[in-house]
Amino acid sequence: MCENCKNGTGPHVPDLSRRTILSGGAALLGAVAAGTSLGAQKAVAQPQSGFAVGSPIKAHGYGLTKAGEPLKPVDFSHRPMRADDIVIDVMYAGICHSDIHTGRGDWGPVAGLIVPGHEIVGRVVATGPQVSKFKVGDITGVGTMVDSCGSCANCVRGLEQYCLNGTTWTYGPDRRNGGQVYGGYADRLVVREHFGYHIPEGMDLRSAAPLLCAGITTFSPLNHWDIEPGMKTAVVGLGGLGHMALKFLVERGADVTVFTTTPAKTADATRMGARQAVVWPDEKAFAKLSGHFDFIIVAVPHSYKVDMFVPLLKVDGSLVNVGVLGQIEGIKGFPLVLGRRSIAGSNVGGVPETQQLLNYCAAKNIRPEVEVIAIDQVNAAWDRVVAKDVRYRFVIDMSTLKS
Amino acid sequence: MCENCKNGTGPHVPDLSRRTILSGGAALLGAVAAGTSLGAQKAVAQPQSGFAVGSPIKAHGYGLTKAGEPLKPVDFSHRPMRADDIVIDVMYAGICHSDIHTGRGDWGPVAGLIVPGHEIVGRVVATGPQVSKFKVGDITGVGTMVDSCGSCANCVRGLEQYCLNGTTWTYGPDRRNGGQVYGGYADRLVVREHFGYHIPEGMDLRSAAPLLCAGITTFSPLNHWDIEPGMKTAVVGLGGLGHMALKFLVERGADVTVFTTTPAKTADATRMGARQAVVWPDEKAFAKLSGHFDFIIVAVPHSYKVDMFVPLLKVDGSLVNVGVLGQIEGIKGFPLVLGRRSIAGSNVGGVPETQQLLNYCAAKNIRPEVEVIAIDQVNAAWDRVVAKDVRYRFVIDMSTLKS
Repeated sequence: MCENCKNGTGPHVPDLSRRTILSGGAALLGAVAAGTSLGAQKAVAQPQSGFAVGSPIKAHGYGLTKAGEPLKPVDFSHRPMRADDIVIDVMYAGICHSDIHTGRGDWGPVAGLIVPGHEIVGRVVATGPQVSKFKVGDITGVGTMVDSCGSCANCVRGLEQYCLNGTTWTYGPDRRNGGQVYGGYADRLVVREHFGYHIPEGMDLRSAAPLLCAGITTFSPLNHWDIEPGMKTAVVGLGGLGHMALKFLVERGADVTVFTTTPAKTADATRMGARQAVVWPDEKAFAKLSGHFDFIIVAVPHSYKVDMFVPLLKVDGSLVNVGVLGQIEGIKGFPLVLGRRSIAGSNVGGVPETQQLLNYCAAKNIRPEVEVIAIDQVNAAWDRVVAKDVRYRFVIDMSTLKS
Repeated sequence: MCENCKNGTGPHVPDLSRRTILSGGAALLGAVAAGTSLGAQKAVAQPQSGFAVGSPIKAHGYGLTKAGEPLKPVDFSHRPMRADDIVIDVMYAGICHSDIHTGRGDWGPVAGLIVPGHEIVGRVVATGPQVSKFKVGDITGVGTMVDSCGSCANCVRGLEQYCLNGTTWTYGPDRRNGGQVYGGYADRLVVREHFGYHIPEGMDLRSAAPLLCAGITTFSPLNHWDIEPGMKTAVVGLGGLGHMALKFLVERGADVTVFTTTPAKTADATRMGARQAVVWPDEKAFAKLSGHFDFIIVAVPHSYKVDMFVPLLKVDGSLVNVGVLGQIEGIKGFPLVLGRRSIAGSNVGGVPETQQLLNYCAAKNIRPEVEVIAIDQVNAAWDRVVAKDVRYRFVIDMSTLKS
């Protein structure tokens, strides 16, 4: 609690020192937890041969071909390399709930091999002849996108995630060229250089990975909805995305309330800078917060009862969904109409904004809180994500992948 | 069709002359339809005695006390007059779908006597000693609100419709003082002067009445969402509200598509200035309009499948509900998230904006298209509204009320 809150002498002043808490938690992988150097950035320029434009990139990773089956080791070929591609040796890959939704068929049938993973940090091992953004040895990040048309009204504004001709997401169908693309649960990735990001010098690489989805997904709407200091805001769902939303809101000087279904997370919420944490549902607390918020970001990964939250918005307030993609339950006209309120959605961020996020996090020392695991623990980790048993993001150390 | 559309030579230019079409249609009330002077404004200063601060205002009108029963003649007393009140002899009262929803119990049980009507034009017959805005004989309008706290953050911004202490709507519970207030299906009304509007000189009084709800409800969101010339917009539902939304959008120079379930209304839509009218649902037309609109205003008075319309929005587009207050069916996260789209609501407009609307309509000669009826036709008119058989608003000539 800040001095003002304790003494009732003024507005809440977030304790900025809290934001510097190191990533960590109880790492499953002893070696990684013990090794302090593993996460440090070290750009080693070791050009690798064996990559040529027009040749497919062979890879090994963890994937599945049927919804709901466990991930297992798999050899596969990425699409042939192009002149504007970089090839990356994957070092770390975050586990996003989207990986699980996709792998378990929550968003539709699984067609062909899925190699999940779209929070990727690695080292560039080859560059096509047209590449100018990276050189071999650079540490680079790849997020949820690997291609877009580059010429539509949204792409030219740096909103590649809303490409009018269809963004190609990091794993699944290649919407631009046909065929399939494969994600970061693998030793190697190929991607158009435009969709690679520079990881700022000195950044902890393990905790950098989740910025590429959990980070940008929560960073972007705060820019778009123009969150200002002192605004009353809420984060619904304190998981991988939610804890990043909380950190970003605190950094912006907003007054943040966290809604969580896990009582054990309330202490974490206040440690990370929330004014308060409400265990949801708590009808009394909800009643007290009626008409309280300018902005609510919902990072719940599945259907939820939105009509509990809409009345908590002020007039002209916005509730922004960044988690649920399927059905949202129970929207009624009354609370929208009677407060000119909005329910919206937001999807990651474009390429320029993602690079901005990485630079921002490096400058402000904002990090996801991660638990590093070995690749053979990935199926157990998926179960733990679904069981809300992660504080707050799993990151796979891909050096544990046996070829 | 404009010359540009016909010849494919440029953007659509709405034919502004279309907007001057007179209100009318097949009036049920022969005498009113024939009489050209009935709608003309004539402020007659005939101070009436018999009104005193502290005394209840006796009235006669049409009301009901049980959900679903027909309206029938009723004598009742308004609350006692206050020092800042005006008393109005009602001349015209529009029929809004809200009247029907309320009277038929769609929005909750009917408690006590309901005298509907919140699109009211009349003549001031008495003023309390603190009244400065009106004098006896003035022609005045009253819309959906008759009271609010006047001091909360929203009231002081002129957003009395979002009063944090509870707006008192024109009929139903008096949220500020207890008891019940009664609306415009009556010979007489009492209201705080703040909630009376000046009807501009020369305005047709019959068609002025629907501006007080159908008009302001569709005018206000176009201001709030900042609709600019050339924007791609849509109106869903071409009824009392929808046809006003269309007229306002055309006046602003927007490109308007109308969605209607009534094929016979498509010609009206283009006559009023729409670029096109789509009979809903028409799956082929919907597919062609995917990602087309900056703004969609939905004036459908009941639950509808919003997930048909959300994908028609561009990135950052807004769909604004002004009709449905109950459940909205089928909202999914995908189309919201994948286009940063919003679903919102909006409720009438505040007192300053409502006066602005009246002045705007007078200056631009924008009128609702009305069908004038006698009070004893009100039950049949309600049925016709539900059957979508009105072009486009019923207005009751209250001079037909027998005392």
